[in-house]
Amino acid sequence: MTSPSVILATYRFPVGVDAARQAEIIAVGQTLGSADAHYPGREAALAACRAEVCAVQTSTGGSQATIAFPVGNTEGDIGSVLTMVFGKYSLAGPARLVDLTLPPTVGTRPRYGIAGLRRLLGVRDRPLLMAIFKPALGLSAADHAVLLEGLVDTDLDLIKDDEILPDIAQAPTMERLRACRPVIERISQRRGRPFLYAVNVTGRADRLLERARALVAAGANALLLNVLVYGYPMLEALAADPAIGVPIIAHPALAGALALSPDHGIDYSLVLGRLMRRAGADIVLHPARFGSLPFARDDEARVIAALSAADGDWPAVFPGPSAGIKPAIVPALMQDYGRDLVINAGSAIFDAGKPPRAAVADFLAAMEGL
Amino acid sequence: MTSPSVILATYRFPVGVDAARQAEIIAVGQTLGSADAHYPGREAALAACRAEVCAVQTSTGGSQATIAFPVGNTEGDIGSVLTMVFGKYSLAGPARLVDLTLPPTVGTRPRYGIAGLRRLLGVRDRPLLMAIFKPALGLSAADHAVLLEGLVDTDLDLIKDDEILPDIAQAPTMERLRACRPVIERISQRRGRPFLYAVNVTGRADRLLERARALVAAGANALLLNVLVYGYPMLEALAADPAIGVPIIAHPALAGALALSPDHGIDYSLVLGRLMRRAGADIVLHPARFGSLPFARDDEARVIAALSAADGDWPAVFPGPSAGIKPAIVPALMQDYGRDLVINAGSAIFDAGKPPRAAVADFLAAMEGL
Repeated sequence: MTSPSVILATYRFPVGVDAARQAEIIAVGQTLGSADAHYPGREAALAACRAEVCAVQTSTGGSQATIAFPVGNTEGDIGSVLTMVFGKYSLAGPARLVDLTLPPTVGTRPRYGIAGLRRLLGVRDRPLLMAIFKPALGLSAADHAVLLEGLVDTDLDLIKDDEILPDIAQAPTMERLRACRPVIERISQRRGRPFLYAVNVTGRADRLLERARALVAAGANALLLNVLVYGYPMLEALAADPAIGVPIIAHPALAGALALSPDHGIDYSLVLGRLMRRAGADIVLHPARFGSLPFARDDEARVIAALSAADGDWPAVFPGPSAGIKPAIVPALMQDYGRDLVINAGSAIFDAGKPPRAAVADFLAAMEGL
Repeated sequence: MTSPSVILATYRFPVGVDAARQAEIIAVGQTLGSADAHYPGREAALAACRAEVCAVQTSTGGSQATIAFPVGNTEGDIGSVLTMVFGKYSLAGPARLVDLTLPPTVGTRPRYGIAGLRRLLGVRDRPLLMAIFKPALGLSAADHAVLLEGLVDTDLDLIKDDEILPDIAQAPTMERLRACRPVIERISQRRGRPFLYAVNVTGRADRLLERARALVAAGANALLLNVLVYGYPMLEALAADPAIGVPIIAHPALAGALALSPDHGIDYSLVLGRLMRRAGADIVLHPARFGSLPFARDDEARVIAALSAADGDWPAVFPGPSAGIKPAIVPALMQDYGRDLVINAGSAIFDAGKPPRAAVADFLAAMEGL
């Protein structure tokens, strides 16, 4: 069991690194700053801030150390936790942050999660299906509405902007929403359950926050955020904002820069898993092993578990296998991970060599009987 | 010469990767989404969004490709640029973003830079000297003021919070500022030039922005930001905000997670160099080769050049060599990089085995005659 007052961080080191020594450097360097730290009359306060080395394990493939940090050294948010556990130390040499156990007071709860989204969308017994507007760039706002028209008669649950489509003159974000809203209304009314369009919210931090509120005020019913570009603290802000209150879809753009090197950075199960869930995402998009991006089965399994396995009373959130997803992959994903998935497809819906509505039907058919 | 309408991105690939093929994947995948992208009547718009491969070079140590992206695919800010050049592609396999040429319309100008800070602080002919409050954690707000008292009679230019000190009950951010303000006033008045205290601004994105404005309204005259934790878009927001308007110091916490692996992520010269300068930092802290963090001389030189070498009419900003900086290192740094540096020292001022004011004098003496 984890203490409610402690954050456990586990680091992996390659062969040749003295894990015990590094663990001491982290425990002191990431709290007091130096082992000589002193201040007259504050000895107890200083001791209370210091982290403790819990375990050091060495094997033939490298070594690992787990360190317990006082949660009181942080603000209880992801920003101060990341700074504490891997801020300056990330510069200190080959080391990878591979696990993080957070007390239930740390982070921002997702507003929907799996249970809330299923309730909102009225889909109880199959994976959700999400499309991505394609082409990613080059279309006007009106073109987006035309693409959506082609999906009016389907059972598609959500659609999202491509993550590389920001607020540009060719198709301004607010205009995309305004053009698509009447179509979204028609889809929702026809079948008596909401259809969601996750608008890509971008921009300088102050503008992004204003834009997100303005989009929701204008009827946006979901948002897409490039979390690694705009920061987990931005995801927490969107998830907590009562003026927003819509489901938030986290995109993995830039995650590879943090997670792809085996000996450095932060493990995918944290970058796209625990940290996303703790920062308030309702759906987290990630590569899948049979898709167009290279993604190890083990990474896939651990990201999906970090998002959807039990974690105290913290809401489970949807994993969203993405990038090169085709109907033929769906049964394999469901066999391994069950029905709590958001199947996310772009080219396989809008560039499938058949009408998009037929491609959507293929995806839904692939989910049946599993 | 660079076209004002193009962003040039250069990627490095390890041996065994087909750079020409990867370059095509990037040029299409990071713009249109797929090579088959089509939409009736929008052929010209689609063609205008596509990136072009400019150069592919292969050598024994690996290969490199440079790609020209239309600046119109972005919002002209760092968030949309990063998403475009390395967002999804960061997940695609071993590749490192090593260079980025940005037109002068992209980013947020630093409010001070080297010239503005020298004018503000009245220091024309030597590096600036910055101290870091130590111990990093464990002190009350009042303790901070007591530490500052010990420096009243010195020529120290700035002091900053440690980056791991967020807004916590032990020493709330606003209380630290309030406790230190009278001492800051006395230092500034005694010598007739401002003394700056860079307060660490943290928290969920919405709170961070509010807190930054509240701190400045309460008299904060500089801010510290963990840019890689809170995002370049947050740095741009702080730098652009007319209600803030104080110098902003960028801390490199978490930079190693992006930059330390040789074959992945993003080069230090971008992470701590060009992107920081383009996002509006006035001083950028970074490891130094003789300090306590391992940092290659080549990385040091390229980070410093990216911050302070000429880049059109974009203001040069201060490199701030940090972590284990001692007076003995100062002459070597100045010999290599001149006087436009902020020498940043924590333990060597507050844990030097002598009164902090004597340690400050040692640093200033080390700058003389060079």
